[in-house]
Amino acid sequence: MLTLYYAPNTCALASLISLEEAGARYETVRLNFADGEQRKPDYLAVNPKGRVPTLATERGILTETPAILAFIAQSYPAARLAPLEDVFAFAQVQAFNSYLCSTVHVAHAHRLRGSRWADDEAAIEAMKRKVPQSVGDCFDLIEREMFAGPWVTGNEYSVCDPYLFTIARWLEGDGVDIARFPKVHAHHRRMEARPAVQRALSQQQMAAA
Amino acid sequence: MLTLYYAPNTCALASLISLEEAGARYETVRLNFADGEQRKPDYLAVNPKGRVPTLATERGILTETPAILAFIAQSYPAARLAPLEDVFAFAQVQAFNSYLCSTVHVAHAHRLRGSRWADDEAAIEAMKRKVPQSVGDCFDLIEREMFAGPWVTGNEYSVCDPYLFTIARWLEGDGVDIARFPKVHAHHRRMEARPAVQRALSQQQMAAA
Repeated sequence: MLTLYYAPNTCALASLISLEEAGARYETVRLNFADGEQRKPDYLAVNPKGRVPTLATERGILTETPAILAFIAQSYPAARLAPLEDVFAFAQVQAFNSYLCSTVHVAHAHRLRGSRWADDEAAIEAMKRKVPQSVGDCFDLIEREMFAGPWVTGNEYSVCDPYLFTIARWLEGDGVDIARFPKVHAHHRRMEARPAVQRALSQQQMAAA
Repeated sequence: MLTLYYAPNTCALASLISLEEAGARYETVRLNFADGEQRKPDYLAVNPKGRVPTLATERGILTETPAILAFIAQSYPAARLAPLEDVFAFAQVQAFNSYLCSTVHVAHAHRLRGSRWADDEAAIEAMKRKVPQSVGDCFDLIEREMFAGPWVTGNEYSVCDPYLFTIARWLEGDGVDIARFPKVHAHHRRMEARPAVQRALSQQQMAAA
């Protein structure tokens, strides 16, 4: 049995959707970020990084969205969530997800997590001001160069899709209009129509209620 | 034939070492960052992100260090650069590399690339000031929680090792004394003794001469 530690509206949603797509048996543990639960000793004993997602497996703990997504895809091959038999195509999936975690998520994080990278209040405000531009530039690149369509890598749905969907949900809060990116926008609607996405979103919402 | 686009002293060194460890046939193209070559049209036609590393393969272009390292490990299984038959252990390799790219490299990047995240000069200076702390905190976590030894994941060398080695080479410039982290420090010496590492370093140096 798998256990996903998550908090609503974080990047953990990508793992939650992927577990649903895989048809995995799993439980969830919801952390309350408003209470700083992710930095309390109980959770740090699970994941010393103090972040989500964490996936607890029979073998031990996994962290980092791209690793968890690849693990789900490889553990449930029948769900066809990545091109597992094609080393190059699999690497392209990894490359897309790596860009999301190391560049796009990081650009976004400068809106609410600037204190990771500077102590002074004016600097943190300066970081916030640049988020619409830096996040917008990332999505310009995705729209222009990286998105094949109808799914991220082309005709086959993969773990890139829930991850892009998850980060695109932050665009409005980041001050970026998703309508600037017609392909990403259409993808977002396509994702919202998937039963696994609807189940993941309602699970997130119910737990928060 | 593979072609690695790289620049000296960047994270591309991890891919260069891994190609050497794999015994791959490859060529290199060295970019001159001082001339901004990575943002010129010739290179943007290869990699529109304007960054290194890029690995050109017969099938197309790959970017992002964790994806390139997994690709090398899967393409040269005889070199045993990742636990390819063990989905969980492979995910742990991915998780370590994902942490390096999305948290450790990003913390480091605030020293020289602050303009990605703020426009104002004082904010960029404030980011620089925090780098010794934020990078040091990352290496504390690696030393305490993530490094198994003698190699990153334990007894088996993997693509985590050249990546950690590459980022640890930046510690001095980041104002962090590697001697604070005895396990990481000993790993660094162990890496320097590997013939593949020596070949990669001297190739980087010769090209720059």
